[in-house]
Amino acid sequence: MKQNNSMKEIGQKLMAAESVVLFPHISTDGDALGSCVALCVALRNAGKQAYILMEEETPEYVGFLDQGYCTQDQDIIAEPDICMCVDCSETKRFPGRREAFFKGRTTICIDHHVTSEPFADYNYIDGGAAATCELVYKLLTVMEAPVTKEIAEALYTGISTDTGNFQYSNTTKETHLIAAELLDAGIDHNKLTVLLYQNTKLERLRITCRVLDTMELFADGKAAIACVTQKMLEEEGTSMEDAEGSIDLLRNIMGVEIAAILKERAPGVIKVSMRAKTTANVAEIAAGFGGGGHIKAAGCTFETDMQTAWDQIKTAIEESLRN
Amino acid sequence: MKQNNSMKEIGQKLMAAESVVLFPHISTDGDALGSCVALCVALRNAGKQAYILMEEETPEYVGFLDQGYCTQDQDIIAEPDICMCVDCSETKRFPGRREAFFKGRTTICIDHHVTSEPFADYNYIDGGAAATCELVYKLLTVMEAPVTKEIAEALYTGISTDTGNFQYSNTTKETHLIAAELLDAGIDHNKLTVLLYQNTKLERLRITCRVLDTMELFADGKAAIACVTQKMLEEEGTSMEDAEGSIDLLRNIMGVEIAAILKERAPGVIKVSMRAKTTANVAEIAAGFGGGGHIKAAGCTFETDMQTAWDQIKTAIEESLRN
Repeated sequence: MKQNNSMKEIGQKLMAAESVVLFPHISTDGDALGSCVALCVALRNAGKQAYILMEEETPEYVGFLDQGYCTQDQDIIAEPDICMCVDCSETKRFPGRREAFFKGRTTICIDHHVTSEPFADYNYIDGGAAATCELVYKLLTVMEAPVTKEIAEALYTGISTDTGNFQYSNTTKETHLIAAELLDAGIDHNKLTVLLYQNTKLERLRITCRVLDTMELFADGKAAIACVTQKMLEEEGTSMEDAEGSIDLLRNIMGVEIAAILKERAPGVIKVSMRAKTTANVAEIAAGFGGGGHIKAAGCTFETDMQTAWDQIKTAIEESLRN
Repeated sequence: MKQNNSMKEIGQKLMAAESVVLFPHISTDGDALGSCVALCVALRNAGKQAYILMEEETPEYVGFLDQGYCTQDQDIIAEPDICMCVDCSETKRFPGRREAFFKGRTTICIDHHVTSEPFADYNYIDGGAAATCELVYKLLTVMEAPVTKEIAEALYTGISTDTGNFQYSNTTKETHLIAAELLDAGIDHNKLTVLLYQNTKLERLRITCRVLDTMELFADGKAAIACVTQKMLEEEGTSMEDAEGSIDLLRNIMGVEIAAILKERAPGVIKVSMRAKTTANVAEIAAGFGGGGHIKAAGCTFETDMQTAWDQIKTAIEESLRN
């Protein structure tokens, strides 16, 4: 694998540039957009032309970060000195902007997802970082760019959302040290808490309750299964996205080791998502049905009716827990 | 108000003692018990006799902290050199152990709740600390007591639970710096996450859904109200404690500024809990019905039927939001 460049090299390139276009990944999130906003503000504060190029609307829950930085105009800067993709391990993470990306005189990639094949001129990939925002914080330090309140809030957003607010096991000593510095930079912690964690869509709450109503505990309470159908989504006037979080609630039940949710994508197409709490391996169960994933989060798809899929996945989970 | 003693004075007293009894508050929680366990382990590691004196059973969710430190035997040490209460701003926080506490040759109080009248021989009260565990961490540093994995896990538990896992506005730079040190001490972060946040009682989940089923949004979606009755608790085989968390879900709905839950304590006795998200003042609303609390969390009690209480509190919230 191509070696990483140093933060210093990347920082020097950015400081020498006059125009920079930043590329967060599609279905952008707090970490990708937070990283881009922090860089965009720092570059503008240093007198450079900088924009964040999107290919979709900004998701509502991180919309507050965009104070005039995002654009969908691929010609916003005709010949940018630098195109920098952020939190994108592969070019398919910005499929509609590939051509625009490679128009940059220099291309840079910064990410915490380990990639097999670095594709930019300069790359900095660190799989040990909990969030790309941690890497951007370090980059700004190397660039000696002042971390203003706005930059700190953008970086805090990425770190908080990518670590489940310091709860996931990707959280490290470094994560907390950076969070300490960001709090010190004067972020409005209460505002961010409200925006990120006290801003649930009503439809999301309602569909979650509907999903929990279908729940069955089995395997002596070690497993929980539930489902969501298109009819349920219609009745609550919402989409599958709002039902996604329900699986965490199932896994979080005392004594439950494996949680599964069956999602009716279309008539006769059932997508199963599974989570393991501590020692179980749901990737193995998913693989048995042609699916895949990680040990603690995996999925597979059935082309059958809900009841058949429900019964089959239940049996497989029971078997897995017996071993 | 009596001045605080220094951490150094308190540390020296503890290191000079041969026997120490620790007193967490009643209805103990992660912070009080975590602080006591950290101190107990450190004192035992320093060759001293140390116990945690309880007057109730340890709550299940923090039970994992007690590896043979807790006792309800008030004579466990006949004449302790030191009795130290932890996270107790007033002696009424250990009502059944007052006599035992004042049997200590020296008494110490360490807390992050500001108290009007320090009652121990040595006191260290810091209202700016997010958790008493932060203060205990500093005390152990002053005592040069090694922070073992077990001590770090106890302290992390207290800091995490008292800050809503770094989400509440009491979280400071210092909180994150200490968390960084505790992660560095080798805590099993994943184990603690499971124990503290992925361990929901099934009954709690079920009663939460029942409460949400009663929810009504009003005042143009700026307020949410719901109720829990004795009948609902009976049907789900649970107690009011399991319904307490529901109010956070109401407040967390997008656009909701005030959330209220009406809890039927007994026939004709309705306790109302209210939360404000950003700028509303629920203490004022509660005061209008003879209740009280803080700006963002307050309550009052009605001696009437559920429907009457519901209508009255709704009207009061509507009025408050109009101002």
